[in-house]
Amino acid sequence: MTDLKKNTIEVCFSPKLFPDRLTKENYIVVIVDILRATTSICTAFKNGVKAIIPVATIEEAYEYKKKGYIIASERDGKVTDFADFGNSAFNFTVERVKGKTIIYSTTNGTQAIEMAKSAKNVVIGSFINLKSLTEWLVKHNKNVVILCAGWKNKFNLEDSIFAGVLVENLLKYPIFKINCDSASAALDLWKLAKTDLLGFIEKAAHRHRLKKLGLDDVLEYSFTLNTSDVVPVLDDKIIKDVNNNSENL
Amino acid sequence: MTDLKKNTIEVCFSPKLFPDRLTKENYIVVIVDILRATTSICTAFKNGVKAIIPVATIEEAYEYKKKGYIIASERDGKVTDFADFGNSAFNFTVERVKGKTIIYSTTNGTQAIEMAKSAKNVVIGSFINLKSLTEWLVKHNKNVVILCAGWKNKFNLEDSIFAGVLVENLLKYPIFKINCDSASAALDLWKLAKTDLLGFIEKAAHRHRLKKLGLDDVLEYSFTLNTSDVVPVLDDKIIKDVNNNSENL
Repeated sequence: MTDLKKNTIEVCFSPKLFPDRLTKENYIVVIVDILRATTSICTAFKNGVKAIIPVATIEEAYEYKKKGYIIASERDGKVTDFADFGNSAFNFTVERVKGKTIIYSTTNGTQAIEMAKSAKNVVIGSFINLKSLTEWLVKHNKNVVILCAGWKNKFNLEDSIFAGVLVENLLKYPIFKINCDSASAALDLWKLAKTDLLGFIEKAAHRHRLKKLGLDDVLEYSFTLNTSDVVPVLDDKIIKDVNNNSENL
Repeated sequence: MTDLKKNTIEVCFSPKLFPDRLTKENYIVVIVDILRATTSICTAFKNGVKAIIPVATIEEAYEYKKKGYIIASERDGKVTDFADFGNSAFNFTVERVKGKTIIYSTTNGTQAIEMAKSAKNVVIGSFINLKSLTEWLVKHNKNVVILCAGWKNKFNLEDSIFAGVLVENLLKYPIFKINCDSASAALDLWKLAKTDLLGFIEKAAHRHRLKKLGLDDVLEYSFTLNTSDVVPVLDDKIIKDVNNNSENL
């Protein structure tokens, strides 16, 4: 296989940089918001949720609330007043989510999903589903754009090092190559972080934001690799797990 | 001195991220476009240019051309047809620039300068003036926002590692602290790069762009520290060296 025929891997460190990405065709977007949306979405599917409908605004979430849906919503780490629960992965328990459809709105993650909707394929990435995500991307054999949700459009460490481990995993397959400096940088940061992930993430600003709010109990869970084999994919405004038949759970 | 009173250091990896920066008050913007605008501007002042007027568009540059000014301009590494010369640092020779005022327009750098104009203080940073820049920032004792020009709004390695070395230098002074994950990441990338700067930059996409165009002769020069003591500062649309009285050169 010549280099020209390889699929490209590109990383956007912020949703603001997504419109200027190099990759314009035939690509899958991987949405990343480790603390906390994408880790929580993976957890919900691991615990048998039927579907998740991500909405960007609190107003949209409220419209669904009036129709009787279960709402998970937060802004800046605080649970939205009318929501059933907030954004922590630990909220999405089997008791609460199994067989249900949940409406989901967060500070950063669901807005990144909104932005990526123009892409044909949008998939949810987190440390907990890294292996199944990688296998799914390899099977689909397309260009990959890793879209870090960041924090209010800013670069953040936790999403960037996840981008790095995904780059490292994909490069094990000869069908992929790096397409941009941000993918190189993410890989370098991951290599620095991987021997002591929680130690490295001590530097992250958002880790301190969560600590301040008493919401950092999910840290160890969020940085543990491959505890789930879900592959949540966005299909016409609804996220479903394409790796497991959640209808039958 | 308590931590609260320290000046913050923030890094924007792309001009697109500048409007969302955390630091909104009392700050100096350091513009960085290592390959090649900010290295070239520092070189011009080292070689005795009187002033540089950066303009964002080719149309503005052409208006100045009609008035008889010397024009340095390029887009995507190619010299603009009506320009006197292009964007390589090696073009700004003593013979060409000493005592002159030059109009300057480039793909990324001058557009980043345009974006930063809202800030009260805008200064030009490159590896070649790192030490004098650091001393000037310490003397001015304000918050610092390092604005990487990137490549067409995308993250790039060369500007990011310069941001990293500037962070490292400023943190030697107790009046500064890091304010964001991007400053941590830039510092980490610089620490990886510093033992073999040219080797590290081999990974950079723009380095390959320049090589393709036969414009990579400036690489070693651009990554050599402290060959000049200039501090080019933007003052009402005109850049002048505030560290040397260029009027008397």
